[in-house]
Amino acid sequence: MQYVKIKDSIIEQVESGMLSPRQKLPAERKLAESFDTTRVTLREALSLLEAEGSIYREDRRGWFISPEPLKYDPTQVVSFPSLAKAQNRTPKTELVATKSIIANKQATRLLELPPFSDVYRVDRVRYLEDRPVVHVTHYLRPDVFPNLLAYDLSGSLTDIYREQYDVKYHKVRYRISTSSLLGEEAQALRATSGTPAMVIERVGYNEQGLPIGCDIEYWRHDAISIESMAEING
Amino acid sequence: MQYVKIKDSIIEQVESGMLSPRQKLPAERKLAESFDTTRVTLREALSLLEAEGSIYREDRRGWFISPEPLKYDPTQVVSFPSLAKAQNRTPKTELVATKSIIANKQATRLLELPPFSDVYRVDRVRYLEDRPVVHVTHYLRPDVFPNLLAYDLSGSLTDIYREQYDVKYHKVRYRISTSSLLGEEAQALRATSGTPAMVIERVGYNEQGLPIGCDIEYWRHDAISIESMAEING
Repeated sequence: MQYVKIKDSIIEQVESGMLSPRQKLPAERKLAESFDTTRVTLREALSLLEAEGSIYREDRRGWFISPEPLKYDPTQVVSFPSLAKAQNRTPKTELVATKSIIANKQATRLLELPPFSDVYRVDRVRYLEDRPVVHVTHYLRPDVFPNLLAYDLSGSLTDIYREQYDVKYHKVRYRISTSSLLGEEAQALRATSGTPAMVIERVGYNEQGLPIGCDIEYWRHDAISIESMAEING
Repeated sequence: MQYVKIKDSIIEQVESGMLSPRQKLPAERKLAESFDTTRVTLREALSLLEAEGSIYREDRRGWFISPEPLKYDPTQVVSFPSLAKAQNRTPKTELVATKSIIANKQATRLLELPPFSDVYRVDRVRYLEDRPVVHVTHYLRPDVFPNLLAYDLSGSLTDIYREQYDVKYHKVRYRISTSSLLGEEAQALRATSGTPAMVIERVGYNEQGLPIGCDIEYWRHDAISIESMAEING
């Protein structure tokens, strides 16, 4: 199939170093001309490359070559800045919104709350080399973290939990699934609606096994590679 | 946006029980009529539902409501049949092909082999309730598993490793990413090319830390939910 050939030829150019990470691809019209193909076939090739995580699209700006994904181990509690720096990446965190709200369905379920409980909601966007890669929504129990919203939440939350509340996660339950970016999350990541996303839900438990906080991460799927090692028992 | 409303209305019908798992949706033309919308808008809604894992498409057969995903913990070595049965599902394994080959790029990398090494390749498709949900390619070292292809490979490989070779995985390294189904893998899962996929690569190590086998799984992304629990150290 012609679009598979076009896809392979773009991959080859990336692997040979002719196209480098974060480089913008030429406009679709030009690309279609240079591969001597139609816009429809070209778009099929681009859409495959996007699905494989080789390229990504920024809304109204065009297509770009994906950098190496960030290696992410969900079994570790490592702050995003430390994780990024350990991999020679340049992290940045943007605080989008903080609110005290009545827990919605998702927060109620993840934190095992009674109906109409209060929770803090913190929304943040994280960047690598100035590219927004993940939208994170944190829900936190106000009885465990009273007055949390008074702190500077643009840094490490884990540090605030430990330093201000002497609380840390003893266990983490996580769930990984795929979805697509829509609405606010898409906009925050400069993505068009429908862009593939990797979704990571994490719930943190205290020593007594009580869920005290959770976060829901919507990643640009090309920006993350989940990698871990497990000992096998039995 | 109209397509988001259509999507939500289909979700509502699933949640209320009016549409049940594995049920076929009416033809696109009929659906478009009943929502009083165009085929283009309807397809946007269906494509969102597919991305969220709520519906799936079988090639030339149409759209279906997704059953509950199988909960899968990559840190455990549990055979697919046991995993499925523990969740009240009906598993089936189809042996697609077995070969003795010179290792390709992927097998060479995952098993840390010298160039031009021999490996066994075993391809299988796994079903839940007669729906193909995952295409698995296993690569195994012939020096660790001599004469492996002589055994019945439609059952548990883990059992064969243990019973015939007294070998088991002591550690597993895994990598989770997203991609799309293409070619043979798409066909084996009755999917159209470009259907979203969850990809799980696992490498098994023996007691000495030598990689002895690996598998590459292409899942229908709606059929799997990766869930695990981790103790936090430090």
